[in-house]
Amino acid sequence: MLLSKLVCERTKEAPQDAKIRSHVLLSRAGFIKQVYGGIYTMTTPCQKMSRKIQAIIREEMDREDGQEVLFPVVMPRELWESSGRYSSIGSEMVRFKDRNDHDMLLGMTHEEAAVHLANHTVSSYQQLPMMIYQIQTKYRDEARARGGLIRVREFTMKDAYSFHNDAKELEEYYYRMFDAYYRIFRRIGLKNFVDVKSDTGMMGGSIAHEFMLITEAGEDSIVFCNKCDYRANMEVATSVQDKHDDAPAELKEVFTGEDKTIEEVCKRLNIPEYKTIKAVVYAVKGEQDELVVAFVRGDLEVNEAKLKKVLGKNVVAYDGGISEDIVFGNIGAIGLSDKLTVVFDKSLEGANNMVCGANKPEYHYVGVSPDRDFGNVRYVDISKVKAGQKCPVCGGDLRVENGIEIGNIFQLGTKYTKAMGMTVHGKDGQAFNPIMGCYGIGVGRAIASIAEESNDENGLILPMSVAPWQVHVCALRYDDENIAKQADAIYKELTDAGVEALFDDRNCGAGVKFADADLMGMPIRLVVSPKTLADGEVEICMRATKKAERVAVKDCVAKIKAVIEEEMAKLR
Amino acid sequence: MLLSKLVCERTKEAPQDAKIRSHVLLSRAGFIKQVYGGIYTMTTPCQKMSRKIQAIIREEMDREDGQEVLFPVVMPRELWESSGRYSSIGSEMVRFKDRNDHDMLLGMTHEEAAVHLANHTVSSYQQLPMMIYQIQTKYRDEARARGGLIRVREFTMKDAYSFHNDAKELEEYYYRMFDAYYRIFRRIGLKNFVDVKSDTGMMGGSIAHEFMLITEAGEDSIVFCNKCDYRANMEVATSVQDKHDDAPAELKEVFTGEDKTIEEVCKRLNIPEYKTIKAVVYAVKGEQDELVVAFVRGDLEVNEAKLKKVLGKNVVAYDGGISEDIVFGNIGAIGLSDKLTVVFDKSLEGANNMVCGANKPEYHYVGVSPDRDFGNVRYVDISKVKAGQKCPVCGGDLRVENGIEIGNIFQLGTKYTKAMGMTVHGKDGQAFNPIMGCYGIGVGRAIASIAEESNDENGLILPMSVAPWQVHVCALRYDDENIAKQADAIYKELTDAGVEALFDDRNCGAGVKFADADLMGMPIRLVVSPKTLADGEVEICMRATKKAERVAVKDCVAKIKAVIEEEMAKLR
Repeated sequence: MLLSKLVCERTKEAPQDAKIRSHVLLSRAGFIKQVYGGIYTMTTPCQKMSRKIQAIIREEMDREDGQEVLFPVVMPRELWESSGRYSSIGSEMVRFKDRNDHDMLLGMTHEEAAVHLANHTVSSYQQLPMMIYQIQTKYRDEARARGGLIRVREFTMKDAYSFHNDAKELEEYYYRMFDAYYRIFRRIGLKNFVDVKSDTGMMGGSIAHEFMLITEAGEDSIVFCNKCDYRANMEVATSVQDKHDDAPAELKEVFTGEDKTIEEVCKRLNIPEYKTIKAVVYAVKGEQDELVVAFVRGDLEVNEAKLKKVLGKNVVAYDGGISEDIVFGNIGAIGLSDKLTVVFDKSLEGANNMVCGANKPEYHYVGVSPDRDFGNVRYVDISKVKAGQKCPVCGGDLRVENGIEIGNIFQLGTKYTKAMGMTVHGKDGQAFNPIMGCYGIGVGRAIASIAEESNDENGLILPMSVAPWQVHVCALRYDDENIAKQADAIYKELTDAGVEALFDDRNCGAGVKFADADLMGMPIRLVVSPKTLADGEVEICMRATKKAERVAVKDCVAKIKAVIEEEMAKLR
Repeated sequence: MLLSKLVCERTKEAPQDAKIRSHVLLSRAGFIKQVYGGIYTMTTPCQKMSRKIQAIIREEMDREDGQEVLFPVVMPRELWESSGRYSSIGSEMVRFKDRNDHDMLLGMTHEEAAVHLANHTVSSYQQLPMMIYQIQTKYRDEARARGGLIRVREFTMKDAYSFHNDAKELEEYYYRMFDAYYRIFRRIGLKNFVDVKSDTGMMGGSIAHEFMLITEAGEDSIVFCNKCDYRANMEVATSVQDKHDDAPAELKEVFTGEDKTIEEVCKRLNIPEYKTIKAVVYAVKGEQDELVVAFVRGDLEVNEAKLKKVLGKNVVAYDGGISEDIVFGNIGAIGLSDKLTVVFDKSLEGANNMVCGANKPEYHYVGVSPDRDFGNVRYVDISKVKAGQKCPVCGGDLRVENGIEIGNIFQLGTKYTKAMGMTVHGKDGQAFNPIMGCYGIGVGRAIASIAEESNDENGLILPMSVAPWQVHVCALRYDDENIAKQADAIYKELTDAGVEALFDDRNCGAGVKFADADLMGMPIRLVVSPKTLADGEVEICMRATKKAERVAVKDCVAKIKAVIEEEMAKLR
């Protein structure tokens, strides 16, 4: 490919909203062009990278007996009603009416379509286990698309669905996919990633893992034990909380005036945050009048994912509208309206001499002992793990890091096959609902993750396995006819030998050429210049290590092929 | 691939609405599964075929210096308003509001997105010519989806956009793409196809060609000359019409009572249809009150595509609502309300002694001479070519055949670059709007076309270049352990040698296996049976010719590789 003809504009400046490295670099290198918030055109280098990643994913899926299919992007309401998700999924799913006034939607995931197909094609236990997958465009109406390709609205995704005779078979297959995911991420050149236990969210099911790239820019929080290998997504992470022994004290109301926040109350009463009880109000989604008050120790935060699971309901932070039952800033568990649902975090169990709101303006209770004063309550785990808490497995110290989710796998159980009435004949002649797993990888997210992890101050550093081109040929003094002739010959020899080369054939200075090569990040830079050619040589320089060496022109193709082989071997 | 595990259900019966061969066979062979009207899941064999076709298209696009990109499926209203097509395209385009109440749409074509990208990346004439293409899912809200993959709502399409310095450069490139299209269709195994001149429709622009597979099931009509190589889509086809010399006669009203149709009036007056003037009423789309009356000779039909071009407006057949200005069944050009727009076909030029409505109930005029009686009218070509009319080029006889559109190419001109304000710097320093071409191929349509053309009473006959598997291995008496062992070994040897094989490993009779192999249509059938193995042989049978031969087991892989090579050579 001639760089002079490549539809890809490099820029010095990144878009104003680009805050993270991958967004900055993919934009500046001209790999992506925003069409609308969260909606991008991928230019040729990006699409080449995408197709290489897709090829690797396809190989690994086929190796696990996957069968590639293609489900529709647009689906009718009925299909999603059959699983119950037409109503349970919110405004992130695009719905529209077709010209015949029929309700249609854009798929964000394809469990329903997979069961629809399997229901028509699989009838006997002998056909299981079976896995189907697709690589297809998906659309999710993200409220806050951001971060370039990290959180977009439209994306290319590999989604796979497996069907099984029983839980044991699913589990075996699940861990085959688990291993396949490790192979995929290694092969596309990701380095610092881990699997973590995760929440099953809108997918349903029980066991799930996410694969996380550990990086500052990540918007997920992951809890790690510093001692053992415990790790989990913050949404599901648990911990052993520190307990603060204190003797019971007398329950009494104190005047706290306009002090309402934990911070204000602590300051007024001169106590640490862990001596207070925090109340957070949620509204049950879709139910205007159903409010939930979650109580946690004042130094902790409510983990909404855990709260949702405990309630079995979808809740959102209460917007603070007026409620007769609540005195905001002075909410407490004693004397609270019984119209409210209350949930108590396990951090409150056994605590004494705490402070909480008195459910009337300007007053709090002090000397609160939840076990004594709140009646017969059940304590559940609804708080977020904090760095420094203890590992639930080994008691080691926990730490929290940021991560980007690069893939996820779920053991779905029979949620979809049951709801959609899919049965197959068992060995014993009885019909049963197959048990399912599902497995996703976002291709654009993978590109962004590679960019996020592999870069330096000058630009991208792309792994050999997924780089759009293996070699970036910089022909210096291309305006010199003699140099141009030799550079052209080298480029032709490279491409004839099957090497993927991007050829900078522009009449511009070395500085511009090197800057573009660094920004675009191809793994090998080949410099053809009057200086090197005078010695009958070219210069080969590795983007990642900046190691450069001179090679005779006649050996250059062989040398480059050897370097490519060497780099690829590292990614196997 | 083991057939016992393949997610693909073969059936004896086709869906009730399947009227054409490709729909029947692709359904019966389990290649497609309908999810909703015009929306299908593609199963593994179909998706494999799709990917092979895509690979061929990609090769040919890259050969013509195409750069693969990926445009978004979902686009914002503003992008389409910038070309004027947001309002000019009707209900076949899906529009919806996103969660922020913003107007969005699903792309059916990507001229706007292509110009958006080019506008940001191309600044100089030196970067032209340039061509970008994508292979992407598209959605068109078809009112009448039908024919399986022939006319669907959701489809995978290759669409390409080229940008040029001038019309000459565009034309040269256009014919490179023209040739590339011939290569693509030949390589995927289509046989009886032609290029025809076509209407530019909603794309705008001037010159356009469609590539048509000639087949009974086609819903397009193509006009061919029997003598020269003139051919054109019915929408734009012209002809030399037969003239019927007749002397002028006296204009007078005659009573025709309740006889209103051409047939009824001809019967009453005992005249041939070509002696009458047919009036067809249209409404201008979006304008409730603007009616158009098109007059053509009674033996001809109005060509709506031509009429739209003449008017420069989109018209639809008038729904027959009451209009004060029209006496339905007795419409004529003499004394017609001047609120109506009238258009006269060239078939009426110079005619004498014709019959037309008198614009009052129960009466027609006879003795009509349009040149004499209609005032100063302009005759234009708005009639459909009929078989038997004469070729506009050589005067030979014209015939009409049905065809399926398998691809189209357009010279768009500057419609989009002008509307969207895309300019580049010319050689002379002046900014100019690049001139564009666009080029489409539907992948699903190609699959259906292959199925439509290549089949027999037993099923599909797939070309080697696009068949999901090259060989269908039928292991007879697979329940016999010894036979199974040998069949497994042959299957393994084949796949190890890189041959794509589908292996029927089921415990079922030879009849079922052969019927499935015929239905699914892989080019080579390899039979392993107790009978052949007794002689140390297998049987190789070609699906297309039914020619079978025995080959020694030890030679079978080499023989099959030779046959594959031979078949592929025919498709180059």
